Amino acid sequence: MVAPVRSGATVTTKAARLLAHPSRDEIRVEGVLHALSDPIRLRIVRQLAAATDEQACSRFDLPVSKSTTTHHFRVLRENGVIAQFYRGTAKLSSVRTDDLDALFPGLLDSVLGGADLQAERLGQV
Amino acid sequence: MVAPVRSGATVTTKAARLLAHPSRDEIRVEGVLHALSDPIRLRIVRQLAAATDEQACSRFDLPVSKSTTTHHFRVLRENGVIAQFYRGTAKLSSVRTDDLDALFPGLLDSVLGGADLQAERLGQV
Repeated sequence: MVAPVRSGATVTTKAARLLAHPSRDEIRVEGVLHALSDPIRLRIVRQLAAATDEQACSRFDLPVSKSTTTHHFRVLRENGVIAQFYRGTAKLSSVRTDDLDALFPGLLDSVLGGADLQAERLGQV
Repeated sequence: MVAPVRSGATVTTKAARLLAHPSRDEIRVEGVLHALSDPIRLRIVRQLAAATDEQACSRFDLPVSKSTTTHHFRVLRENGVIAQFYRGTAKLSSVRTDDLDALFPGLLDSVLGGADLQAERLGQV
């Protein structure tokens, strides 16, 4: 009998650090709209979209707990709105602009533009 | 003393048949996205948008109960996506295209266009 390879700890660590993302053809417009319909999640996406590179979760100053923040990032990722990956101990995020623009042309831009106009109207800028 | 005018029954009837709508400046992008994020509600809006006039709820062939259908129409109305009014015993609905286009330019069109593209990809047309 061959003894099992005892590399379980390493494998587990790697698996736990790979975050699940829907492929482009698994993304649904209803899921994207749901992900963007929450004020905190919309705020996250607006900040990510305005950034020139990936952003660590710790860069977001949100009026919710850390676990709620993690939940909101997960909803965005699981619905295909953002990509997340680890770099060292930091979890970095970016908007899946190419995928969203290919699937639903103009949707992301009109949501971000509409959110900007609304913020202006409400004096939140 | 002046006796109260006994027109209560008429007033009640009229009030019950006036449906509450947010004014244009009360409509929020998060609420619109939430209303559109449900598959049944998105289907309703696609059918309404494709119609040339107001549609009665009875014209919609949806795979949900009548009370669930009523709920979905109410969510759409309360979030400013559709207008509803009574004509006789029929409750008629239409998309608030002018309000939505003024508030969030391109949003409604890109959602409808994205939903069309998705339906094509999934072979639902």
